[in-house]
Amino acid sequence: NNLNNMGINLTNFLSSKSKNTKMIDFQDLDHLDGLSISVVSASLYQDIRDDLTMFYFREGANYASLYTQSKIVSENIKWNLNQKPKKIFSLIVNTRNANAFTGKQGYESLKKLADLTSTKLNQKQKEDEESPKKISSKNIMFGCTGTIGETFPYEKISNNISNLTNKIRYTQNKFIWMKAALAIMTTDKKPKLSMEECQIGNEKIKIYGIAKGSGMIYPNMATTLAYIFTDATLSNDILGKLLKKNIGNTFNAITCDSDTSTNDMVAIFATNQVKNSQVKSINENKVKNFDKALNNVLLNLAKRVVSDGEGASKFITVKVSKCKNEIDAKKIAFSVANSPLVKTAIAGEDPNWGRIVMAIGKAGPKINLKKLSLKLGDLTIVHDGKLNQSYDEKLAANYMKAENIEIGIETFTGKKTFIAYTMDFTKKYIEINADYRS
Amino acid sequence: NNLNNMGINLTNFLSSKSKNTKMIDFQDLDHLDGLSISVVSASLYQDIRDDLTMFYFREGANYASLYTQSKIVSENIKWNLNQKPKKIFSLIVNTRNANAFTGKQGYESLKKLADLTSTKLNQKQKEDEESPKKISSKNIMFGCTGTIGETFPYEKISNNISNLTNKIRYTQNKFIWMKAALAIMTTDKKPKLSMEECQIGNEKIKIYGIAKGSGMIYPNMATTLAYIFTDATLSNDILGKLLKKNIGNTFNAITCDSDTSTNDMVAIFATNQVKNSQVKSINENKVKNFDKALNNVLLNLAKRVVSDGEGASKFITVKVSKCKNEIDAKKIAFSVANSPLVKTAIAGEDPNWGRIVMAIGKAGPKINLKKLSLKLGDLTIVHDGKLNQSYDEKLAANYMKAENIEIGIETFTGKKTFIAYTMDFTKKYIEINADYRS
Repeated sequence: NNLNNMGINLTNFLSSKSKNTKMIDFQDLDHLDGLSISVVSASLYQDIRDDLTMFYFREGANYASLYTQSKIVSENIKWNLNQKPKKIFSLIVNTRNANAFTGKQGYESLKKLADLTSTKLNQKQKEDEESPKKISSKNIMFGCTGTIGETFPYEKISNNISNLTNKIRYTQNKFIWMKAALAIMTTDKKPKLSMEECQIGNEKIKIYGIAKGSGMIYPNMATTLAYIFTDATLSNDILGKLLKKNIGNTFNAITCDSDTSTNDMVAIFATNQVKNSQVKSINENKVKNFDKALNNVLLNLAKRVVSDGEGASKFITVKVSKCKNEIDAKKIAFSVANSPLVKTAIAGEDPNWGRIVMAIGKAGPKINLKKLSLKLGDLTIVHDGKLNQSYDEKLAANYMKAENIEIGIETFTGKKTFIAYTMDFTKKYIEINADYRS
Repeated sequence: NNLNNMGINLTNFLSSKSKNTKMIDFQDLDHLDGLSISVVSASLYQDIRDDLTMFYFREGANYASLYTQSKIVSENIKWNLNQKPKKIFSLIVNTRNANAFTGKQGYESLKKLADLTSTKLNQKQKEDEESPKKISSKNIMFGCTGTIGETFPYEKISNNISNLTNKIRYTQNKFIWMKAALAIMTTDKKPKLSMEECQIGNEKIKIYGIAKGSGMIYPNMATTLAYIFTDATLSNDILGKLLKKNIGNTFNAITCDSDTSTNDMVAIFATNQVKNSQVKSINENKVKNFDKALNNVLLNLAKRVVSDGEGASKFITVKVSKCKNEIDAKKIAFSVANSPLVKTAIAGEDPNWGRIVMAIGKAGPKINLKKLSLKLGDLTIVHDGKLNQSYDEKLAANYMKAENIEIGIETFTGKKTFIAYTMDFTKKYIEINADYRS
């Protein structure tokens, strides 16, 4: 069975239950008008597994995307940035190879793949459509993830483009979504899917998303790979503004290991199949519900990335509030969330709050030391800048045994809040990363 | 034997040899005029070990010190900053408790300890000196290191002040230096000592130093604990300028885990026993030799801190050169040196240079991608922004087996260089830090 070719039992996945219901349960994504998904194995890994995915929009999709802010970006991001088409007809995602630092070979490979794909898709259009669209190479977008600096496996991928187009079906179900979510994984242990249903005006709208990411996660104005699909009719401009607005407190609020990828990418595609009334500004009332639902989908996926962080045993929320501005709150939240000493203490279930204080101090922004407060869950540890008289380390030690750890910090310099999400730092992280390529 | 009460065999230490001669060998520090060292166990740890050290300057010492730039600093740093005496008569260093986030209790404890110590030392002055000096509480400086946020153990320490003053001897040897270097350790595996002999004019000068530090090491304009002693005659002003000048490429060039302590402190003390001619400016020719020797002592200690980094199996040098300015070079060097993915790859002896490229990219400063070069030791991996045609991964894999790993990066944006020092990231790091307090 192709579906569990990664040693993952799909049936178990689809029915899995856990204490942490919101995070682990899978939502059933199903048919989304205007989108086809094909998944194959292009033998990019030594073991056979799905590793090449095509998302095909038969009528083209409006879109928006955000990319890594790294000064060294992968060739597929360069390709995507260079095209600027009005619509995307296909997004092709490969794993195992990041196509980063592959230079001309990497870039030209994508050009040839885009040529080949558009040719194949034009044939498909002629076979299937009454009024076939004209698809050119620039309508093809790429997502790549895997090892940096290795020659891009052009042959293996180009040999499989017709397998992908042959597999195009116009009805999707939960199995193909799961297959795609599995196929884009690298060191991830769990596929990441999320969905919301919402409305624009009176029209029912679907927002579906999948993501991958487990290490090298500290997105900076963009993210690991995350792809969002909606059947709404929304322009590129509106999609871009909505994506930017909702990235700050979702994918830009997570960190696994403080490392930022060359390949981070989050993109949203609208198939325009639901004929909702036109949205001209993201401030219009009729788009509020969609806006909120998009935030939910993004936050859900972002949290799934963190909770599957390499070697993670605990999910950590760092909430910094009563802060002068959001930038300061974010600096403090990430200083705590990225601190190896805080993350290892949590792995050891040790309420060593002194390390949290250290991380608050090193962050940079001023804090009101006479008012500072620090909580672990509901337990007040520091109050008015002093150790809480009734602090009981036994209660704190007990709290640390939970799977979800919430750190609450109030700096009393203003009114702003930022919430960062991360996971603990275990021996497993070292194991995974010392042996990644072997 | 008190000297090996930490399970460390002192004789082995003093005669130890290794491949990495410069780093592991211990230099024999001996008598330094005007300084006395006393070491006791104040039972600050559950196991008996030396944990309280007094450095006593019978004629007072000129001095300069630099402290952590954290927004939350320990009570001893606040004390030291508040006194501003012309001379220091005693530096008292305790381990196990950082006296950070201990509030009034921590600060008042130091005040009482300073009162008690100055009283005891005034008695000592009357007994031993022809013209006894008047020592007040403000002439006492404190260094503290250990867990943050626990009540400062005032009683245990105050009960031992007379033990410290009773142990004052006016001749020092290598054993008392080693004993002091061991007594200031926390999670360190090895004591850190360094010395140089130099000249100011025709006078022979000694510079001796000890340091501690193993985790929470990413100093920011100051450091972990490091104490430098010289018998030269130098003013507070000159000592301050020399220390500041030499900290940038020594203690501020190291990182173990990107975490910055609340207690970082480096101080230099001059006993003025050698009557060298007066130094009025650090640009004078006669102070060049001292300047260089001080840099050697600081760099030697800083490297020892890194090579003893928690769980370290390898010592890593990251040299970034041909850079626009030193700030950019430093950002890139520390981005590589602090990257968990780079550090775990090195622990796994995997020449996964893609992760180094990732860390260069995420650092922020622009680089000349068409010229960028990357070396592992003498092996050129990236040249003119492209993978070196003759790069042989087998050679690189072999190189990674060494204890000393040198990463060379040229960004081709200018002429400036920065060298950072760090260690790899092993399972041992997690082990040490998940269990630190238990």
